[in-house]
Amino acid sequence: MHTLGDIAKTINAKLVGDSNVEITGVASSLYANQTQLTYIVNGKYKQTLIHSKAGVVILNKDLLINCPTNALVVDNVYLAFAKATHLFKKQTVCYHGIHPSAKINNAKIAPNCIIGKNVTIGNHCIISSNVVIEDNVTIGNYALIQPNVSILEGCSIGDNIVISPGVVIGSEGFGNAQDQQKHWHSIAHLGYVVIGNNVSIGANTTIDRGTIEDTQIHNGVRIDNLVHIAHNVIIKQDSAIAATVTIGGSCTLGKRCMVGGGATITSHVNLADDIIITGASTVDKNLSEQGHYTGFTSISKHQKWKKIQVWLLNLDKIVHYLNIKLKKLKEK
Amino acid sequence: MHTLGDIAKTINAKLVGDSNVEITGVASSLYANQTQLTYIVNGKYKQTLIHSKAGVVILNKDLLINCPTNALVVDNVYLAFAKATHLFKKQTVCYHGIHPSAKINNAKIAPNCIIGKNVTIGNHCIISSNVVIEDNVTIGNYALIQPNVSILEGCSIGDNIVISPGVVIGSEGFGNAQDQQKHWHSIAHLGYVVIGNNVSIGANTTIDRGTIEDTQIHNGVRIDNLVHIAHNVIIKQDSAIAATVTIGGSCTLGKRCMVGGGATITSHVNLADDIIITGASTVDKNLSEQGHYTGFTSISKHQKWKKIQVWLLNLDKIVHYLNIKLKKLKEK
Amino acid sequence: MHTLGDIAKTINAKLVGDSNVEITGVASSLYANQTQLTYIVNGKYKQTLIHSKAGVVILNKDLLINCPTNALVVDNVYLAFAKATHLFKKQTVCYHGIHPSAKINNAKIAPNCIIGKNVTIGNHCIISSNVVIEDNVTIGNYALIQPNVSILEGCSIGDNIVISPGVVIGSEGFGNAQDQQKHWHSIAHLGYVVIGNNVSIGANTTIDRGTIEDTQIHNGVRIDNLVHIAHNVIIKQDSAIAATVTIGGSCTLGKRCMVGGGATITSHVNLADDIIITGASTVDKNLSEQGHYTGFTSISKHQKWKKIQVWLLNLDKIVHYLNIKLKKLKEK
Repeated sequence: MHTLGDIAKTINAKLVGDSNVEITGVASSLYANQTQLTYIVNGKYKQTLIHSKAGVVILNKDLLINCPTNALVVDNVYLAFAKATHLFKKQTVCYHGIHPSAKINNAKIAPNCIIGKNVTIGNHCIISSNVVIEDNVTIGNYALIQPNVSILEGCSIGDNIVISPGVVIGSEGFGNAQDQQKHWHSIAHLGYVVIGNNVSIGANTTIDRGTIEDTQIHNGVRIDNLVHIAHNVIIKQDSAIAATVTIGGSCTLGKRCMVGGGATITSHVNLADDIIITGASTVDKNLSEQGHYTGFTSISKHQKWKKIQVWLLNLDKIVHYLNIKLKKLKEK
Repeated sequence: MHTLGDIAKTINAKLVGDSNVEITGVASSLYANQTQLTYIVNGKYKQTLIHSKAGVVILNKDLLINCPTNALVVDNVYLAFAKATHLFKKQTVCYHGIHPSAKINNAKIAPNCIIGKNVTIGNHCIISSNVVIEDNVTIGNYALIQPNVSILEGCSIGDNIVISPGVVIGSEGFGNAQDQQKHWHSIAHLGYVVIGNNVSIGANTTIDRGTIEDTQIHNGVRIDNLVHIAHNVIIKQDSAIAATVTIGGSCTLGKRCMVGGGATITSHVNLADDIIITGASTVDKNLSEQGHYTGFTSISKHQKWKKIQVWLLNLDKIVHYLNIKLKKLKEK
Repeated sequence: MHTLGDIAKTINAKLVGDSNVEITGVASSLYANQTQLTYIVNGKYKQTLIHSKAGVVILNKDLLINCPTNALVVDNVYLAFAKATHLFKKQTVCYHGIHPSAKINNAKIAPNCIIGKNVTIGNHCIISSNVVIEDNVTIGNYALIQPNVSILEGCSIGDNIVISPGVVIGSEGFGNAQDQQKHWHSIAHLGYVVIGNNVSIGANTTIDRGTIEDTQIHNGVRIDNLVHIAHNVIIKQDSAIAATVTIGGSCTLGKRCMVGGGATITSHVNLADDIIITGASTVDKNLSEQGHYTGFTSISKHQKWKKIQVWLLNLDKIVHYLNIKLKKLKEK
């Protein structure tokens, strides 16, 4: 908990409001309540600001007139928000083997595991060697967690889950704000990873926690090895993600999607239900219609490829040239 | 070991045969012997079925007439097979530091390592910290295994091997069968990873075990960091695989192949000996002739690329349009 | 330390010079001093050889006449060099929990960590569970090192660093020399990884040490999850590398570059300052002008993509065909 006075000092903001108000956390502008901090980056969100129920809003001075609550006025809103998040980050490092407050039921726990405070593990779970489970993690029944897995603070996992070796769940999202000198300031990610039932996760896969809200993996999802799932991704029921797929921040994948190995889905992309992506494809836009999609260059002999690339990188010129030629011929 | 009666019950099949027959494992339809279970997905494999020496075959009722042995009749063969595999999966979790049955010879073993039952480690091996080696693993002479490596049940590794930190060997393959509700059911992978002599494996690389037969890495192979090698891949002698390469399930790479960093080889692709793949390429078909192959889009200025993509995604239309134009001109 | 006599025997070279000269290490041909070994692969570097101050140079017999110092004459210089590097490699495996010679100041160290000889850790550091820090590593103030991280021999890290779970720093580079039988011989990488201040590194990312000189990550760099940074890469101040990016050996990225998720930068590529690379792009050449660059195939419906690929892979033929057609029409 931090007073507005403290927060203003930390993020170097001008406080317009009551410096004694206490803030317990961060929320998005639509959902923030009177004990929470939020931010409005620009005038596009003016209506949200006007109806805000937040305890305090970080904003620019030109939006101050629209702020119905306490305001923290700054030049660089996103940077100030990034700094503020660190005030609410729980720094969790476990200094015990199995913490006495952990409820591990009849879980079989192999040597060298670390189980944090207030961890709850359901029945019939197997936790293999060298696994680290940080504070406040919840795991359902019949989990199999293989060696060298790290599950970080507060994440929750359903029943019948298999987590392969080396998996990381709840790592920080890749969100950074730039200051005037172009230095990066990381955003402390305050959301969790929430994983449903009947999910399997492949070796050395990483799943980042959400910025404010949670990263979500729904029931029945299958994830292969070395997959990257960024902050605030939502993968819906029964989707399958093959190896080394990259899913950028805030993507949503519908139900029963299948993404082939090596594909990249760029940030903020939404896939409808029942989308199939061929492996190695790049998904750089929303796909709202079910079906099978592909996007990569097929393999060919290197010498042939070199010629093709010359034409491809000049395709724009070629088409224009042909059009002119054709026009001239027509006019002859 | 499971009786056919038990197996029929577990996979919800109609047994045609002797419910007391005992089955000890799973094999592919060509190789299954009288103590093994196999499956035939469709009529394409009728000849294999007719000559099967398996103890029992999972199949559809329309193939029953061709079955020379006990049969487990189901609607969804692949799903039934997926369920059956779990009966034969050894669940190995090590609850000791170094198990007394492990033969570790003069290996130097750093703190916090876990060495399972019946593990054999050759002479002059170094096992660094926090390494987990599960039951029945065999490692040859002069191995260097770096920190935080996981080598799972039953895998075998030759002489003179270097395994970098964070590597996972023997993780489950990504094989799943779908039921009528489109829920996924994982196949328990019963094969191993078999690695030859003089192999090096880079940091955080993952190598999946085979479904029934083994994933194989032959002598002299070099593998870089963050590489994914799926189930049943075979990489032949002296091939070199650079970082972040994805090799899909059941691929075979010939001798002395070189695959550049970031390349993706889709599933079921065969490369002949002496194939060179440029980094970042996608290999989406068999390559049977030695040589140098490439397939990706070269980098260009973003604005130029945007124009190129417009034409590229309309290349089909453009070529047709040009053909029509040319035809018309010719007819003038 | 090794005498020239010993080195000649190990790499099977003809020594021209004093077999009692003692060599303490390896350096590049430009910088090697009288206690160091270097190598000259071919006549292109004749001028460097003529001015060499090295204690000994590995070379072919046709360059012997230009060698101003001791020479190790071999047929395959690169292979001989690869073999020589292993003489100077420090094999570091830690057989203690926290070594008594480690200076850990007020660092908080979680259970099951391994801290090697002569490690120095600054003030206010937090080392989470199951972290392995090998001999001679230096870490600055205010580090947060998360679970299951491996930091290998001799690497150094500045102040205010965050290292996410599963990261590997200082793994061997992927450098191998081929002998006549096409067998690979690894080069022992003798450089380190040197990381500046205010750097963050995402989960399961791997950073290889340099071959002779160091891999460098400068101040303020942000690196996301599952990124591969090869040997001798230099990433300059305030650059940001998103998830699953592959950066090949000896690349240099300028200041304030931003590389999107899933991009591949092939080996020996230089990027100027302020370069932006769209995610999933392949960077296969130097980019010397600041700006935004892209290179991949956009996603489309699979059936459409198949048609496009047919034309694309025949683009060379199409352009030639059209040119001929146009010429003929013109001549009509």
